[in-house]
Order: sequence, then structure tokens, then C-alpha cells
Amino acid sequence: MNRLFSIASLTALAIAAPALAQETEKPEYPSPNAIVEQAAPEEWVAIAPSDLLVMDLAPDSEGNARRVVIQLMPPPFSQGWIRNIRKLAEAHWWDGTSINRVQDNYVVQWGDASEEKALPEGLETVPESEYVVELENLPEKAFKKTPPGTYDDPDLDAAALDSRTVSDTDPYADWSSFVKGWPVGTKDTQTSPVHCYGAVGVGRNYSPDTGSGAELYTVIGHAPRHLDRNIAVVGRVIEGIEYLSSLPRGKGQLGFYEDKSKRVPITSIRLASELPAADQPRFEYLSTEGETFAKYADARANRRDPFFIVPAGGADICNIPVPVRRVSGE
Amino acid sequence: MNRLFSIASLTALAIAAPALAQETEKPEYPSPNAIVEQAAPEEWVAIAPSDLLVMDLAPDSEGNARRVVIQLMPPPFSQGWIRNIRKLAEAHWWDGTSINRVQDNYVVQWGDASEEKALPEGLETVPESEYVVELENLPEKAFKKTPPGTYDDPDLDAAALDSRTVSDTDPYADWSSFVKGWPVGTKDTQTSPVHCYGAVGVGRNYSPDTGSGAELYTVIGHAPRHLDRNIAVVGRVIEGIEYLSSLPRGKGQLGFYEDKSKRVPITSIRLASELPAADQPRFEYLSTEGETFAKYADARANRRDPFFIVPAGGADICNIPVPVRRVSGE
Repeated sequence: MNRLFSIASLTALAIAAPALAQETEKPEYPSPNAIVEQAAPEEWVAIAPSDLLVMDLAPDSEGNARRVVIQLMPPPFSQGWIRNIRKLAEAHWWDGTSINRVQDNYVVQWGDASEEKALPEGLETVPESEYVVELENLPEKAFKKTPPGTYDDPDLDAAALDSRTVSDTDPYADWSSFVKGWPVGTKDTQTSPVHCYGAVGVGRNYSPDTGSGAELYTVIGHAPRHLDRNIAVVGRVIEGIEYLSSLPRGKGQLGFYEDKSKRVPITSIRLASELPAADQPRFEYLSTEGETFAKYADARANRRDPFFIVPAGGADICNIPVPVRRVSGE
Repeated sequence: MNRLFSIASLTALAIAAPALAQETEKPEYPSPNAIVEQAAPEEWVAIAPSDLLVMDLAPDSEGNARRVVIQLMPPPFSQGWIRNIRKLAEAHWWDGTSINRVQDNYVVQWGDASEEKALPEGLETVPESEYVVELENLPEKAFKKTPPGTYDDPDLDAAALDSRTVSDTDPYADWSSFVKGWPVGTKDTQTSPVHCYGAVGVGRNYSPDTGSGAELYTVIGHAPRHLDRNIAVVGRVIEGIEYLSSLPRGKGQLGFYEDKSKRVPITSIRLASELPAADQPRFEYLSTEGETFAKYADARANRRDPFFIVPAGGADICNIPVPVRRVSGE
């Protein structure tokens, strides 16, 4: 008769959260998380407070605070919408708005349900051309199609992986890779952000409308990559996504809350740079240009840590989440 | 100044749930859901009650029932574990067990937290070789590598799409496709189920242990395809996944509930065939061998319905969920 599994042994059931280490490590085949833990301090890149949105929802039914932190994308991605978002945050525009839609395996969406709240002055109308960035305008060197390395590959070093190409087996792009800590997909000469879990995007009406940034959503299910290049991605949730992903699903069409009392009030959304210095959350991400990230990405694509039997031999870009961690103190 | 978007227009923000139709349809470019709605009755395949697990959780804090329905995979996939699962269900073994782990962007897992409950007699020890099925043993004709068709493709007919090959741009498989209503990936001559959102798998200890089926989990985030071929997939949640995906995340390592009072009690898990006939839920899935599914899959890969600007030109297999619907009456 089979023994029941100990809960401790069940902790071996793979790992997704970058902050956790595998219980049993093999030195020659560390888990992705163990690799990240070995990164040198200089491989972690501080995130500027002006790149962080701090969203406070009303406390939950037990009175617990619910804070969600969003990292905004760097230039040259989606900057028109991001400028608008900074203006909206500075105007405290979202205070008193709400989460209005929670659709399973899809999105959580928030904004002004009344549709009557006046927007701040000076918001830009961002053209559809901004959904993508021309390759030549990217901060990286021109991309090379470089298959991911393996532990057995003597060429696995930082120089060989400059392009950080993850894969050219991506149905949504000619190839996918990382730029300055962000997953992107490139088709022909155009690069766009990708809709991975936790990505934050801009709600819009039908084309040619592109949205202002007042209506936002985040992905809480399988990456809906068919949205890439069709709608603006402006950032990602880096802390507190569970406060969104665990919300009751809306019973209306597309997961909208039919019962208005179910909408989750948003107390405030602030740029971290507007908070008192002592209250500003501090985060850093693992540079996607360093050797540790290259090894981490390879380990995500080829799991050889003890739980696994068969390395996949590849990974889709949304299955290589960029490690982000909070910095405490100082 | 930009007008705020009406909630009604926001319903155009793409669609994931197969049961919903796009508000505005273009006849020449219907949405995937509209295509499904046009399927002929004979394209829907009834699911046998013995292929359905009905899981009742304790009522929620407001006294609402929480029922989850799971469809089990057909032969030749994972049958050893599925035989065990039927024995466990017939023995009412899960009654009084609980959901013990909820890890964001990963899994919900359930079973006997005490680790002391005796298993029923007669469970099989299933070998690792059963994680995959040899191509020659599949019920379909031998697979052809056929790129998905498009609306402009005169060869888009049922005969040309016999193999239902979705894509050969899959980092986890040589190609991915559908067999008898299930997404699978094939590498060399071996085919395995894939860990899409809602897939149900068998918790195990380290290899060579393969799990009995007493400990189960379902995917509530981005498809963790690195688990394919490493752990058994036995089915998928076809109704009620929101009762699992909206659970509070566990605060312990890997999302286990440290506070035992947070575990969600499971009242019962029954095969639908064991329920009184009048209580047996009835479901059907859209045949993946028919013309409608081929068109639906193509539309998922090439969204040309009004909200979209740029068709993706491809899709990963987990972004083509097989339509399943409840049958009422009779």
C-alpha cells in the first residue's frame, strides 16, 4: 500500500516563487531559486520610486491592509501611457475608484465605475504605433537569435548571452527575450512587451482608441499573449498580486461585478516617490544582462533539480519570471 | 480630454470564457466564441458520468455551496492513476480531507493533511513510463505536422486538419495538438498531456515515486509546462474552478496553509456515476476532430474580431481551451 506523502516531501512539488529554495539541492544542478540566491549584489538593480505605483485597497473583511505594488516599464516602452499614469497618480485620481472586474483565468480590472469622473488636464492621446518599439530604438545591442545555453555549453557566459534571447520557438513572436529586466517579443523589426501573469495593461475602447491609463488591468491566469501588440502593457505587479488574484470572480459578463456592493474600493494609488521617504517601498530586480540571470533562465528551461526527471529543453518566456525582491532597511 | 470608457465598451476587452459572445460581431470575422456557438449539435461529445468527479467543498462564509467538477482523461492517458482515483472516490476516501495549499500563479492542492488516513486496498503503483504514451498507441491516426490553417487557406477543412496539429512552435514539445478533446504535446515518439490552466495532476514524492492519486492539484496560473512528462495529468476542472482559484493564498512555504484553520474542508468527492441519476451533472465537450473546432482554434490564433488590430499568427496550446459546456434538462 502506498504511504501517504508527507507534507514536507510535497514541498518538492516544483517551485514558482523566486524567493524560495528547493529543500534538497544538488550542487551541480541547483534549482532556479538557488541560482538567484547566489547572485552578486551588483547584479540586483534598484527600482526608482518614481517607477513604482503603490495601490491600497480597502482593508479586507478581517481588517487586514491590502497593498499592491506595481513596477512601471522603462523607456522606450509605453511611455505615453506611463506619463498619463503618473499624472493620474499625482492627481490622486484613483482615490475612491474601485476594482470592477475579476474574470477567472484572465484579468482583474479597475478604474472609475461611474464613468463620470473628470480626468486630469494634460493627458496625452497615445497612438497605436506606441504598442511596439522599433528594434533600432531599443537600449540593447541589436538582437541576435541565440538559443538558450545549457550547463554543458562552454559558451554559456555573459558575452554569449548578450542578446538574452530566450527562444525562437514562440508562436507569438519571431523570438522572445529580455530587455532591462522585462520580457518582450519581437516580430520583424518591432518589439513589444508581453502579457505574462501579473502584467499590467491599459483598458481601451475599440481601435483607434488606445486608452489613457485611467482604466488598468492585470493578468491573473494563463498569459493571454494574443493581446500583445493590441493593447498597451505598462508594468507588472511585483508585490501583493494575491490581493487581486484571490478576489471573488464577478458574476456578470466578462467577470464584471453585477452587484455593485462587490466592487472593491481603492483607497489610493500613489507613486512611491510621493510617499514620505520612510514609507517608500524599495525593490530591486535581477539584471537580465548578468550571468546569474542567464543561468537562472537556463535552469527554468531545463529543470534538473531533484524533483524533476525530464528537463523540458526550453521554456516560454512567461515561464521565466524576472526575480524582483523587496529591499529592507536603510 | 479623453472620455472615460463605458463599462459596456470595456466588455470588448477580449474574451476568454468560451460561453460568452463578443458584443459586436463581424460576420466574416466572428469571435472564437461565436464560432463555437455555431457548432452543430453532433459536434458536441457527451462526457460519461464515470469520467466526472464531483468535489463539494464546505460552504463558504456566506453559506454558499462550492462544487467543483473535474473531467477525467480518456484512455490511453494516465489510466493507472485514474483507476486509483475511481477507487478512492468509490471509497469516499476524500471525505473529511482538505485543501492544504494555494500558491499564487501555480497550484491549489488537496488531500489528507494528517498523512495518517489509510488508503483503500488495491491501488496500483503506476510506473514513470505512464507519464507519456507512445504515438503508436494513440487513438488518432499518426500525427502529421500540419501548421494551423487560416481563413484564407483553401485547405482548411476537416480532412486537412485530421491531425489537429496546433503548432510546431512550442518550446516544450516537437509539436502540440489535441487528442479526443485534450491538449497534448509530443516529443519524438512520446505524447503527454499538458499542464494548462485547470489541469488536474497527481502529487508525488521524489522519483521513482509517481503518486497514487490521493494527493491532487490543479493549475491556477500560467501553464507550468515544465511539469509535463514529470508528473501525471489526470484531468481538468470543467466547472467551479473559481472556488479554488479565488481561495486565499497560503502563507507557508510553497503556499501551504501554516494555520490549519485555514485549510478548506472537503465534504466529499464522488464520481458523478455514483450520484442519484437526477443529481448527476451532465457535460459535453466540443469535438476536436470537427470543422468547428478547427475554425475556433484558428480564430484563437488569429483574432480578427473587432477589438483586435493585429492577429497573433499563432497560439500556444494552452491559449486554445477546449470548449466544455453543461447540458441541462432531460
